[in-house]
Amino acid sequence: MSSLASPLRIILVSPRNPLNIGAAARAMSNFGFSELRLVNPYQVAFREARSAVKAQTILANAREYPALAEAVADCGLVVGTTSIGPRAIEHPLRRLEYGARIISKKMAVSPVALLFGSEKFGLSNQDMSHCHWLMRIPTREEHASMNLGQAVALCLYEIVRSPPAAKVKPAPRRPAKAEDLERLTALLEEVLERSGYVHARVEGSTRMKIRRLIRRMDVNAHDAEVWLGMLRQILWKLLS
Amino acid sequence: MSSLASPLRIILVSPRNPLNIGAAARAMSNFGFSELRLVNPYQVAFREARSAVKAQTILANAREYPALAEAVADCGLVVGTTSIGPRAIEHPLRRLEYGARIISKKMAVSPVALLFGSEKFGLSNQDMSHCHWLMRIPTREEHASMNLGQAVALCLYEIVRSPPAAKVKPAPRRPAKAEDLERLTALLEEVLERSGYVHARVEGSTRMKIRRLIRRMDVNAHDAEVWLGMLRQILWKLLS
Repeated sequence: MSSLASPLRIILVSPRNPLNIGAAARAMSNFGFSELRLVNPYQVAFREARSAVKAQTILANAREYPALAEAVADCGLVVGTTSIGPRAIEHPLRRLEYGARIISKKMAVSPVALLFGSEKFGLSNQDMSHCHWLMRIPTREEHASMNLGQAVALCLYEIVRSPPAAKVKPAPRRPAKAEDLERLTALLEEVLERSGYVHARVEGSTRMKIRRLIRRMDVNAHDAEVWLGMLRQILWKLLS
Repeated sequence: MSSLASPLRIILVSPRNPLNIGAAARAMSNFGFSELRLVNPYQVAFREARSAVKAQTILANAREYPALAEAVADCGLVVGTTSIGPRAIEHPLRRLEYGARIISKKMAVSPVALLFGSEKFGLSNQDMSHCHWLMRIPTREEHASMNLGQAVALCLYEIVRSPPAAKVKPAPRRPAKAEDLERLTALLEEVLERSGYVHARVEGSTRMKIRRLIRRMDVNAHDAEVWLGMLRQILWKLLS
């Protein structure tokens, strides 16, 4: 993917754990982002991450920068992620659901940098001073800090998620026609009579109960045929 | 947390990697879910995961089941996750954005089970036959398979995400009043004249350009004071 196709730069600042670098790259691949940048990574972690499965291209193309200013230089919007609540922060803070919409729009006109701090300390105040604003994943206050790889995955998912596309419901199965449901009702009733579950003399109300029972099943045309076949077999056995 | 407070059961089927079990538990803690169930876990993985940081309570309370039917027995809705596209699947398949809405609603009336298969193979056809329907995270088709811990985090996030709550924007800073902006405009103009950047004779159009420049900054009341202070100091230096 060219950088034009992927105007979002995922920037990991001082990452320490190769599994997290690999997980970040894998999530980028899952959601179609390609530009990974590392600022001052722990060298052993970066080397080990490069051998991670499933995201080799992204890791092979990942660039390393000595300082954050250089890593974000070509970006028109710089957003930092944090697990800290609004009280302790000098920056404007947006929740992921809302911040991701702004990032999506901005990506159409300019590269955008999304920053993640180190596993242990997050972004420093100095890192944050490079940001236009900060973004927070809506975790519980009592346990706000997320795993780095999971945090990257969540942010990317929120940026690409598309409720209209998701509204495509499962291909509906053709519903059973009323005549099939009525055949089913009659057949089930006969089976229940033959098996002694109901008696012919209370037939009227039983027929209605069974009719309603069958309709509540919301059975499709295919399954109605399966049910009819099963009941015919049961009836044959009861009569023989 | 009681099971009433958390009517969602996260069910990992045959998980192999303790880091993934730990990551699933951590994400549950992040988003306020407490009921973790493991079906046929790799025993070493389960033991090691229990020593994972940050989600001890959830892991200590995690229950182990020999078979999936028992793990989902008390649930009114059983949803499986899969990375496979709709073509190869017998079940109704919904995308996460849409499926999570249904799960949220169902959770209000009944416990819901959300199933994740093993890292290597996902859910088997037999596992899926226990599901009412399947759910898919909207990853790229070319790289659909997600890390288990990341997949759990995404599903839980989507279930708790709340666009209305996220609409709370950063506390707006009081915008600078027009008279402050005009003072700023005049002071900047004077500094630019004194420094030789502009000449008094083209004053009219320069004033307007500077006025527009200052308004585009969208400066707040506090920052306007900071700018005025800086410019006064610069002017003092230029005049001395």
